[in-house]
Formats: sequence, C-alpha cells, structure tokens
Amino acid sequence: MSLNLFLIFLLASAAAAATGVIFRPGPWYAALKKPGFTPPNWAFPVAWSVIYLLSAFAAARIAVLPGAGLALALWSAQIALNTLWTPVFFGAHRIALGMAIIGALLVTVAGMTLAFWALDWRSGLLLLPYLVWLGIAAGLNWRIWRDNPGAGAAPR
Amino acid sequence: MSLNLFLIFLLASAAAAATGVIFRPGPWYAALKKPGFTPPNWAFPVAWSVIYLLSAFAAARIAVLPGAGLALALWSAQIALNTLWTPVFFGAHRIALGMAIIGALLVTVAGMTLAFWALDWRSGLLLLPYLVWLGIAAGLNWRIWRDNPGAGAAPR
Repeated sequence: MSLNLFLIFLLASAAAAATGVIFRPGPWYAALKKPGFTPPNWAFPVAWSVIYLLSAFAAARIAVLPGAGLALALWSAQIALNTLWTPVFFGAHRIALGMAIIGALLVTVAGMTLAFWALDWRSGLLLLPYLVWLGIAAGLNWRIWRDNPGAGAAPR
Repeated sequence: MSLNLFLIFLLASAAAAATGVIFRPGPWYAALKKPGFTPPNWAFPVAWSVIYLLSAFAAARIAVLPGAGLALALWSAQIALNTLWTPVFFGAHRIALGMAIIGALLVTVAGMTLAFWALDWRSGLLLLPYLVWLGIAAGLNWRIWRDNPGAGAAPR
C-alpha cells in the first residue's frame, strides 16, 4: 500500500462523488413512484462515501502487486461508468439510459471483485459493499424505469 | 499488449465519450463569446475519438509492465475527471466549476504522461495529443469564463 496511490485513487473517486453534489435528486426524483426497498435519501451519501474509501483503499493495495493490470483496468472502467451514471439519471433524467449504464457498471464491478479477489482476497472483500449497494441501486433504477412510464426525458 | 485490457480501457473511454453525446453544446454554447482559437465544433468529436483510442492503447501497453501501478492510478483519475467535465460544463452550465475540473485534469494528464514515459517512452508519446488538446480546451474554458460573466448557472 502506498499513500500516494491511495490519494490518486481517492481523487478519481472524488470526481465520481462530485456528481452526487452537482446533480441532486431534487423534486423530479421525489415525485417518482419508487419501490418499498428504496433507501432513505440520507443513506446514499453515507453508503457512497464508505464505498469510495474502501474501493480506493483496495485499489492502492492491488496496485503494488505484480499482475494487477486487469484489476486496475476494471477499476478504471467502473469509476468512469460510476461518474457517468449520476448526471445521466439525475441531470438529464434519462432513466432507460441510466439502466443501461448501471447494468454495465454492475457487470464491471462484479468482474473487478473477482480480479481483486484472485490477487488478494482481503482486497476483494473490501469491494463487497460496493457490489451489494450497486445491486440495490440497479434494482431501484429498474423499478423506477418500469413504474414511471413517461417520467424520463426523451432521447435528444 | 493484451486485447482484453485494451477493450476494458476502451469501455472506460466510452463512458467518458458518451458524455459528449448526451450533453450537447446546443444554443447555450453557441451564444457564448469565444476566443479566436476556438476549434470548430466538428473538431471536438474527431480529436476526442483519436485521444480516447490512443490513451486506451497506451494504457493497455503499460498495464502488462511491472511497476505500472502509479501510471494506471493516474489513468483512472484522468478518465473520471474527463467523464465529469462534460456534464458539469455542457449539462449544468457551471463554467467556473468546469475550469477547476479541467485544471485538475490537465495536471493529472501531465503527471500520467510522465509516468507512462518513464515506463515506456512510446506509450508516453501516445499521450501527447491528449495533453495538447487539453491545453486548448482548458484555455477555451478559461476564456469563456472570463469573457461571459453571468452566462453560467449559479451554484445550487
């Protein structure tokens, strides 16, 4: 583990986290029909803060190991997809496109967890909260898509 | 170089590229006062396509080398910051915040180019178009900020 590496992965995570501050749920999200398992609003920043810290820490552990190329490539892909989802969903109100992105993100994070686990099982373990939370978020995006026809913005 | 690695870095780049399709410049950008060195609109997708391909290819070359942790951490940070900039600037019309993000991105890409160069100078060379184009984009963001007081959205 190197502190410099941890701080760089944290910078990447900060870019993803910033989307949650810049593109707020607001009245549009509040008015959507949401399923019973929808977490309360306060849970989102708490969960994401924990997830970003754990995944940056796991990446910093992995990055010093030989053969970490695949695991770090998957880490790059998840942080870019993660940064993309919030402005698409909360900024552009593109619910169906958000579903496609969060689906790709879920597959990427599942692959990343396996790649981390194979190199160092403790680092893989640190990614499990991400996988669980993303499962909930993807289910939420799915139900919002299904239960709110016409609530999203039309493709431009 | 591994094809799988290239495709994963390309997936990350596709997430960043998607922001340019989803958050279009539109009439807001057209109406801004812009400096004489502003590239024509068609140049942006062309330049970014070349840059994303070259930087994904460079990352795939680097990812198989020993000691690539720092270079790949910087690659992660640049793709997240890159994905963040477009929705902030073209989606939320936050010109000053865009300037802060593109400044951080420029520093990150400069550091990444050095880190790539140190491992494999050919891969470092592949990143030079990115650095040059980013210099132009940052200069453009700066001049738009300076020359269009009141054109951006207020912080929410």
